[in-house]
Amino acid sequence: MKKIILFGAGRSTTALIQYLLDHAEELNANLLIVDQDKGLIEDKINGHSRGEALVLDIFKESERKALIQSAEVVISMLPARFHQIIAEDCLAFSKSLFTASYLSPELKAMDKKAQEKGILFLNEIGLDPGIDHMSAKKVIDEVHEKGGKFTSFKSFCGGLIADKYDTNPWNYKFTWNPRNVVLAGQGVAQFLEHGKYKYTPYSSLYSRTESMDILNYGQFEAYANRDSLSYRKHYEIDYIPTIFRGTLRKPDYCKHWDAFVKLGMTDDTYAMTDIEGMTFREFTNSFLPYSTEKLEDKFKAFTGLDDISRFEWLGLFSDQTITLSKGSPAQVLQSILVPKWELEEEDKDLIVMQHQFEYEIDGQAYKHKSSFGLEGKDSQMTGMAMTVGYPLAIAVKMYLKGKITRTGVHIPVHKNIYNPILEELEKMNITFIEEINEVSEFAL
Amino acid sequence: MKKIILFGAGRSTTALIQYLLDHAEELNANLLIVDQDKGLIEDKINGHSRGEALVLDIFKESERKALIQSAEVVISMLPARFHQIIAEDCLAFSKSLFTASYLSPELKAMDKKAQEKGILFLNEIGLDPGIDHMSAKKVIDEVHEKGGKFTSFKSFCGGLIADKYDTNPWNYKFTWNPRNVVLAGQGVAQFLEHGKYKYTPYSSLYSRTESMDILNYGQFEAYANRDSLSYRKHYEIDYIPTIFRGTLRKPDYCKHWDAFVKLGMTDDTYAMTDIEGMTFREFTNSFLPYSTEKLEDKFKAFTGLDDISRFEWLGLFSDQTITLSKGSPAQVLQSILVPKWELEEEDKDLIVMQHQFEYEIDGQAYKHKSSFGLEGKDSQMTGMAMTVGYPLAIAVKMYLKGKITRTGVHIPVHKNIYNPILEELEKMNITFIEEINEVSEFAL
Repeated sequence: MKKIILFGAGRSTTALIQYLLDHAEELNANLLIVDQDKGLIEDKINGHSRGEALVLDIFKESERKALIQSAEVVISMLPARFHQIIAEDCLAFSKSLFTASYLSPELKAMDKKAQEKGILFLNEIGLDPGIDHMSAKKVIDEVHEKGGKFTSFKSFCGGLIADKYDTNPWNYKFTWNPRNVVLAGQGVAQFLEHGKYKYTPYSSLYSRTESMDILNYGQFEAYANRDSLSYRKHYEIDYIPTIFRGTLRKPDYCKHWDAFVKLGMTDDTYAMTDIEGMTFREFTNSFLPYSTEKLEDKFKAFTGLDDISRFEWLGLFSDQTITLSKGSPAQVLQSILVPKWELEEEDKDLIVMQHQFEYEIDGQAYKHKSSFGLEGKDSQMTGMAMTVGYPLAIAVKMYLKGKITRTGVHIPVHKNIYNPILEELEKMNITFIEEINEVSEFAL
Repeated sequence: MKKIILFGAGRSTTALIQYLLDHAEELNANLLIVDQDKGLIEDKINGHSRGEALVLDIFKESERKALIQSAEVVISMLPARFHQIIAEDCLAFSKSLFTASYLSPELKAMDKKAQEKGILFLNEIGLDPGIDHMSAKKVIDEVHEKGGKFTSFKSFCGGLIADKYDTNPWNYKFTWNPRNVVLAGQGVAQFLEHGKYKYTPYSSLYSRTESMDILNYGQFEAYANRDSLSYRKHYEIDYIPTIFRGTLRKPDYCKHWDAFVKLGMTDDTYAMTDIEGMTFREFTNSFLPYSTEKLEDKFKAFTGLDDISRFEWLGLFSDQTITLSKGSPAQVLQSILVPKWELEEEDKDLIVMQHQFEYEIDGQAYKHKSSFGLEGKDSQMTGMAMTVGYPLAIAVKMYLKGKITRTGVHIPVHKNIYNPILEELEKMNITFIEEINEVSEFAL
């Protein structure tokens, strides 16, 4: 009996675990789930005979090593900083490893050794990164095979709230880690447009958006992701003059979030002073210049927003008091947002992704959109959990069935990795809709 | 014969060295100057019989230790990160140490040991920090002694170009480290106004300025320094409802510098891609959204400035090419500014400082300004070199003459340190003008 070992049973693992348990018999495998929280594991296994729970401190070296030695394959859904320690053991005992995290330089450096051992370390095999790579690279490879050449590639992804459950004025709820939402976009965004390098500083990020419709999911707007340039290499489109990756929000979200950024409320680099007992109103006022003017008027003048009802709805001008006794502006803002943007039991989230390609084949110009959307089933089996978990689970299944045979350290941009996974994802309703139009020329 | 050892012979040490050599006989001391650059030391010693040059790698432990053991007192004008290694030797051999740098936590932690050894580690004894501490704390102590209480303390300092030599449209030249000028203000500025904590993010720093006249030096504007709050403790005015420290520039400088900040041109956190051969115009364009609009018009629209002649004068819209082959935006911007803002041989710099106090004594309200300005003598004996070097040199002299007897790790906020130094500074023309006015009440 093969043993699949999964480290971590957190929020994004529901679909992953269910899929692997559903296919455990077919794979002649058991799934051993390791976490600090036994109850969490048992909830997810839900009495399935092929599932097993283990509480283990991964820093206990000999226990961890013995465990990994007993595995057929290993999956790490731990926070990314823990992958390296797991990966080193996997290398030592020749076990393949799967993660949904960005490939770190440390893991990347293990490529040669992994090849020598004949094992696969597959990273970035979740939603974004993951499904984005596979679906985009498939189109890119097909166009290249036809002798085509790309003039533009833009790619957008968002984890949002489904329309029916979109009940607050921000049109946003926390469907994933709130801290990451509050800190999103810090640093510079780098991309290419018409051959020009473009650098958007964080303070302008949320005011330089672009809008689009996606399938029947409605209108969205996107702000730039940090580094779009590195994708030229991953996707073998080094020559491309326009490349842009962005994160999707519902319309008008960004210009309001921009106020938090410009005020300095998303700063996580320093602790505010004496916030114990401070009101939300005082918190807001601390980011605006002193004057005898009314706070609401100062806020409007600084942000340039006439309608500040979204901020009023959050209570930012109220005498509610901050629940933290210390913290950065970002931590305080998060503590204000969390109760307001919490996903309710019956809420369903929405995942949307769209690639926009422009290319030429044999002198004919094409605009090609490749899009998908998926709603969650409930607050456990969310769209996020499914789109992060299924690609990972399918990759493990395909690997165990011998349908993925590549070795070394990879992300899923190779045909012999993405093809079997994308095919299987379609069975799980993760299907891209392709809209291809011939055009006479591209706009400048 | 006593030996004063000075580590570092860089740009700000001219006045320090001259003063110590001038007083060497009176102190029965020689001055040994340690630097990597023998020529630099010898230029500064200029044949003086009391001066001695030594080229030493301070990381050669045994040589460094032997040297420090031979000293009467030690001065470190090295970059601040090297002070700790010098300080540890000073502690080991019971030698007092003087620096013009901000007191680091590592040095602060040596307080008890320094007291036990009966030695003094005096830090922040330059201009800012240094003269600011001494001159402000003197007024504060005097008002407290009279039973007074402060309602406001604002303090401003700037290193600028003297009016007569102010020949460029920015009214600014590099009179100190260009890199520090380009990066100035990054992070958040924290201060208190009328009992309200205020946090100004970097992206708003240069647009929230205040203006003032200083003596007969004309008008200035100030942007907030990073941390004004910590001065409440240093100056024993914990109770004060308004405290603000700012950096001075000539009028309208800040609103133009603000454009660099908001564009992202002062970002030092990432390397730009493919800048070899890039024109200044392309550099400027890379921080603005792609459009078919003319660059100058995009620049005006984004910055809100109608008059962009200062940027034209720098060549930012020209086809001049960048001289660096790699670098961050801040490094590229610095490479553009340095040749334009360079101090010429005959140029004289200007140091200005102003404290603005508001206090009450016996029910009477006072506004009190305490100001000084000093022009440099030439491009070597700059106002900056004098105002950084003299306080340090005088502190060493006063210590050797037994007029400063305090032990432990300090900054110059104690009467028995600042009084003898301020008295001596007056002889060097660093004299504060006090303007004290009774007022009926303070504005809100």
